[in-house]
Amino acid sequence: MSIIVLGTVALDTVKTPFGTRRHMLGGSAVHFAMSARLFTPVNLVAIVGRDFPQKYIDFLRKKGIVLTSLVKVDGKTFKWEGEYRGDLNSALTLNTELGVLSAFRPYISEEQRDIKYIFLANVDPEIQMHLLKRMRSPAFVGLDSMNYWIKNKRPALLKLFKRVNIYVANDQEARALSGEHNLIKAARRLHSLGPEMILIKKGEHGVLFYSSRLIFSLPAFPTDKVIDPTGAGDTFAGGFMGYLARAKKINELNIKKAIVYGTIAASFNVEGFGLNRTARLCVKDLEQRIAKFRKHILF
Amino acid sequence: MSIIVLGTVALDTVKTPFGTRRHMLGGSAVHFAMSARLFTPVNLVAIVGRDFPQKYIDFLRKKGIVLTSLVKVDGKTFKWEGEYRGDLNSALTLNTELGVLSAFRPYISEEQRDIKYIFLANVDPEIQMHLLKRMRSPAFVGLDSMNYWIKNKRPALLKLFKRVNIYVANDQEARALSGEHNLIKAARRLHSLGPEMILIKKGEHGVLFYSSRLIFSLPAFPTDKVIDPTGAGDTFAGGFMGYLARAKKINELNIKKAIVYGTIAASFNVEGFGLNRTARLCVKDLEQRIAKFRKHILF
Repeated sequence: MSIIVLGTVALDTVKTPFGTRRHMLGGSAVHFAMSARLFTPVNLVAIVGRDFPQKYIDFLRKKGIVLTSLVKVDGKTFKWEGEYRGDLNSALTLNTELGVLSAFRPYISEEQRDIKYIFLANVDPEIQMHLLKRMRSPAFVGLDSMNYWIKNKRPALLKLFKRVNIYVANDQEARALSGEHNLIKAARRLHSLGPEMILIKKGEHGVLFYSSRLIFSLPAFPTDKVIDPTGAGDTFAGGFMGYLARAKKINELNIKKAIVYGTIAASFNVEGFGLNRTARLCVKDLEQRIAKFRKHILF
Repeated sequence: MSIIVLGTVALDTVKTPFGTRRHMLGGSAVHFAMSARLFTPVNLVAIVGRDFPQKYIDFLRKKGIVLTSLVKVDGKTFKWEGEYRGDLNSALTLNTELGVLSAFRPYISEEQRDIKYIFLANVDPEIQMHLLKRMRSPAFVGLDSMNYWIKNKRPALLKLFKRVNIYVANDQEARALSGEHNLIKAARRLHSLGPEMILIKKGEHGVLFYSSRLIFSLPAFPTDKVIDPTGAGDTFAGGFMGYLARAKKINELNIKKAIVYGTIAASFNVEGFGLNRTARLCVKDLEQRIAKFRKHILF
C-alpha cells in the first residue's frame, strides 16, 4: 500500500562535534520518506522555494519518491540551523527561517486522495487537518507534532487527535502535551484524547508503544557512532509506517516488527550527516542489523 | 554461594509527591541485601550508631540477612534526606549526616573472609579497598560508587577498578568518570580502566551491559506506579549479583538472566516507600512479572 506523507522539505545547516554541513537536504517529510520508501511507494506533500536546488529534486526522484505534490513557489525554502554539543541527544536550534512554509496549503492530486496510509509529519496542525480532510478513505493515519504547536496551537492539535490512529511524539512532547512526567501515564492520557495508539520516541533510550491492548518497550540499537541525529525520529516513523503499509494488516505482531524496523532505520540515520546513510540503505541492511539487535536485547 | 555486601545502613527521610516518610530503614547495603537475599544468603558489612532502632535489626535478621559484621558504635547512624519532585527519576538531596560512617573501618569474621561473591556498594573507595583486601579468594567482585567519590577520591576509585570484575554505575556517574557522553563510549572507556564488565543503570530507561564479548540493553519494566525510587539501583544490583551467585557460572546466558531479575526486582522497589515492597517479595513474584515483561519487550 502506498503512503502519503505531509511535512517539511528543508535546507538544514547542522553543526556537530564531527563537523558542519550547510544547506543539506532535510525536513520531516524527507527523512520520513527516505526510510518509508524501503517498504512501499511514498508520495511526498510539501513546499519549497525558488532557491531549492534541482539536484535535490533529482535525488528524491531517483530514490523513487513520488513528487507530484511537491510544489515550488516564489520565495525561500524553509531553513533550519541547529547545533549538537556533547549531548547529541538534543539539538540547539540556532535559526529557523520559515520562508514559503508560512503560506503553505497542501495540494494533492485526485489520485492521491485515495491513498490509505497517511502520515502527518511535523507542520502546523491546521495544515495537517487541511490535508487530512482531503483524503477520501484513510485506513491508518499517523500524526507527529512538536513543542511549538503544542504550545501555540493546542486546540487545533487536539482536533486532529480525534481523527488519527497513532500519535508519534518524543518524550518531551508527550510530557508537555499530557502534563504527566511518567511516560506510561503520559501515554494513557494522550490515548484518552483520541488516538488508539501512542508511540513515544526517547532518542538514545528507544521507544515506548502504548495501546489499550499492548504496551511495548524497545531500547535503541546500542551504538557509539552518532554523527548527526537530525531526522532520526522521522526516519523511525518512516520505517514504522512503511513496514505497516507493506504488511497491510495492523496487528500486534506487525506493530512490534514495525517498531523494530523503525528503530533500526533510525540507528542508520544517526551514523551520517543528513541523509548520507539512509539514502544508501536497503531492506537487507536493516535485516542484518536486526539480527545483531536481537543478540543485544533478547534473553 | 553466599554474598558479602559492604555499604551503608541508613535512616532515610524521603519526600515524594505521594508523601513523606521519616527515618525509614535504608542505605545501599540494605537495599542490595533485601533483593539479593531472594537468591542466596547475604552477609551485610556496615556500621550504625547507638540511635539505630532495634526493630530494624530484628527486621533484617528476620529477612535472613547475616548481621555478624553489622557493627553498632557510639555516635549517630548515617542519615540521608531527599526529595523527589515531578521527575521521580532523580533525587534532590536535602541533607546528609555521615555520623558514624565517617570513621568506618569494616570488620568481618574469619569465616566471612572466604566468601567468593563480593559487592562493594557505595561508600568511600578506601573503605571498599580495605574490605576487598581482607577477602581471601574473591571469585566475582562488583563495585558501585557515586559522584562524590568520583570527584573527590578518583585515584582510590581507579585503584579499585583494577581489582573488580564488574563496575555498576548510573548513567551520570558513568559519564562523569569516563568523560564520554555516549554510553557505549563511556562503557568502553571504563572497561579499559580494569573491570571486564560494565553495567550502566539508566533509571526509567533500563540498563546497558558492556563487556568485550557482549553488549546487552534492556528497558525498564514499564510502570506508572513509582512511589519512591530510593534504592532502586542497589535493588537492581542485589538481584543481579544474587542471581549470579546462585547460578554459580558466569556466562552470557546467566548474565542476561541476572540483568532481567535485577530489573524486575528494581521495578518492585519503586512501588513503595523504602523497603515496603521488596521486604514482601519472593522469587515467584519476580518470575510472574518477568513473564509479563517478556510480552512488553520481546518481538
